[in-house]
Amino acid sequence: MPLTATLERVEIELGDRSYPILIGDDLLDDAAHYDALPSAAGALIVSNTTVAPLYAQRLRAVLQQRYRTVHLLELPDGEVYKDWTTLNLIFDALLGHGCDRKTVLFALGGGVVGDMTGFAAASYMRGVPFVQVPTTLLAQVDSSVGGKTAINHPLGKNMIGAFYQPQLVLCDLGTLKTLPPRELSAGLSEVIKYGPIYDMAFFDWIEAHMDALVARDGAALAHAVKRSCEIKAEVVGQDEREAGLRAILNFGHTFGHAIESGLGYGEWLHGEAVGCGMVMAAQLSQRLGGVDAAFVARLTRLIERAGLPVVGPALGTERYLELMRVDKKSEGGEIRFVVLDGPGSAVMRAAPEALVREVLSRCCQA
Amino acid sequence: MPLTATLERVEIELGDRSYPILIGDDLLDDAAHYDALPSAAGALIVSNTTVAPLYAQRLRAVLQQRYRTVHLLELPDGEVYKDWTTLNLIFDALLGHGCDRKTVLFALGGGVVGDMTGFAAASYMRGVPFVQVPTTLLAQVDSSVGGKTAINHPLGKNMIGAFYQPQLVLCDLGTLKTLPPRELSAGLSEVIKYGPIYDMAFFDWIEAHMDALVARDGAALAHAVKRSCEIKAEVVGQDEREAGLRAILNFGHTFGHAIESGLGYGEWLHGEAVGCGMVMAAQLSQRLGGVDAAFVARLTRLIERAGLPVVGPALGTERYLELMRVDKKSEGGEIRFVVLDGPGSAVMRAAPEALVREVLSRCCQA
Repeated sequence: MPLTATLERVEIELGDRSYPILIGDDLLDDAAHYDALPSAAGALIVSNTTVAPLYAQRLRAVLQQRYRTVHLLELPDGEVYKDWTTLNLIFDALLGHGCDRKTVLFALGGGVVGDMTGFAAASYMRGVPFVQVPTTLLAQVDSSVGGKTAINHPLGKNMIGAFYQPQLVLCDLGTLKTLPPRELSAGLSEVIKYGPIYDMAFFDWIEAHMDALVARDGAALAHAVKRSCEIKAEVVGQDEREAGLRAILNFGHTFGHAIESGLGYGEWLHGEAVGCGMVMAAQLSQRLGGVDAAFVARLTRLIERAGLPVVGPALGTERYLELMRVDKKSEGGEIRFVVLDGPGSAVMRAAPEALVREVLSRCCQA
Repeated sequence: MPLTATLERVEIELGDRSYPILIGDDLLDDAAHYDALPSAAGALIVSNTTVAPLYAQRLRAVLQQRYRTVHLLELPDGEVYKDWTTLNLIFDALLGHGCDRKTVLFALGGGVVGDMTGFAAASYMRGVPFVQVPTTLLAQVDSSVGGKTAINHPLGKNMIGAFYQPQLVLCDLGTLKTLPPRELSAGLSEVIKYGPIYDMAFFDWIEAHMDALVARDGAALAHAVKRSCEIKAEVVGQDEREAGLRAILNFGHTFGHAIESGLGYGEWLHGEAVGCGMVMAAQLSQRLGGVDAAFVARLTRLIERAGLPVVGPALGTERYLELMRVDKKSEGGEIRFVVLDGPGSAVMRAAPEALVREVLSRCCQA
């Protein structure tokens, strides 16, 4: 298929680890997009049992023009499989096929496939190149960009991983057509996130185009993906390893991770937990004086319009607090939150426990 | 204990990842050596059931002056445990103790403890600081320096890992007094290695001092550790991620890894396998015209004097070749070897299979 007019390019500027994000329709099949990749004898496509039947053969066909051998590995689908046992299937495949240290890995799927393939690429023979081909909205706007890779541990989400940048991110908007509605909503959660933490003009745009986004209007999705990637690129370019600024991208994630972990991974989608977590983080921000009640209501309404939950599950306040204490942002036992210090601006800080308890009791089912 | 006159310092120059190696007697107990480490609430000492009873309490006592909590984890001892299951014990301990992303890990032990603790540090919350406190000669002269961390996979040694530099390497020569003779010999193997690949003057020195080294003469060991670290520092400083030069440090390792893997990890010590592997690599070098028979005999004699095996186990030629094809240096199915292109100089290259077969049949038990 020829290039369409919608091809967009966003650069992640990280010195010798810089790479482009390409965004457009049916990019998957265009061999030209792969031209700049390092040469190698072989490639391994890592996907899952849901996505592989839809897109793996198309990707394989185009990669076979470039690599002598192209293997495919289908992982089981779901956050619950984002663990060592599943990760090891990637190492088994790489070693079983005799893949050398130049082998290129392609992550074809959502955030779970991307995070695990990225960590496998970071660790196999201490590092092989990899490419992100995200097929969910969430992965296209967030998880495939910026080099965070990880697996979960029973005691915490994304606790074992690496900062490891891909060579290329290919966001094929065509793949969003097959996304289940619940996954689309989960992706919109991370799109919405960029507004309150960084760009109120984008927030206004999302409000104006939420109906179009939910209806999968191509132009609306293209803009949402592009602007999200631009913001992520700006933030990651300034703080690759999350020494400071980058942490704002975790708005809603401290509460969200507690929900995911407390219910058991996979019960709520990551984006759903983050959507609800942003409501809680906004409530906390209001109590800390960063935003007013009208803004919290406006954000809550937008999250709801995206089809996302805005009330947390009844885990109990003590359990929430316990789960949040193992968050990676915690230091010396103190839970730290990303909160808004104004519309379009976020900071990380500790919050008085009494306020956190108030937020939990207000925002969660009894 | 006060500082002794033997304190030596070697710098690893890697920009913002630079760090010192300190070498001397009873360094372990001197709080001053830890002053430059990043501040943190807690530390975790990772050791094994052999080393911990000897040195862990001394290390813990000095670290308790610096960190509010100092936990100790004892892993089972041996190369056979250098796998994911054991690595996961480190993650379990970190999460179980609520360790945050500033926690400092201390690897107290030999190469297995150092490689696993380093990889755990690289991966826990995508990276926490760590310190190497090597207690074997092999770890002091080789594995603790340079940032290579890894675990084994059933299909290959060190296949899963990261390049991740410590903050500090503390080589306490006092710990070598408790080393079993077989472990001392294994360490001498990596000391000898630096001669043929890089520094013939050091090779001459080792020949002249082999009896002193085997007898654990303090001054001889101090010089051997220091000069080995200096050479490693020079090589790693030029090529941190093994794009080229650094590969020469793997002299003897392609054959050696095949021995270790073929017999089952732990049957031969790593240094023993490398000792025998160097004999094979020297024989291959001779067949490629790099060194003469007299030099091969001289190197073989020195390896023997260190108490190391110089004849390979009877795995069978086909099995050796199969095991070497999964070596990390292989590319496109071709086995590559570090060979000598003269005394004191090494290169990496592919070798005709017929020559490799000849070497295997000459150097291994029938």
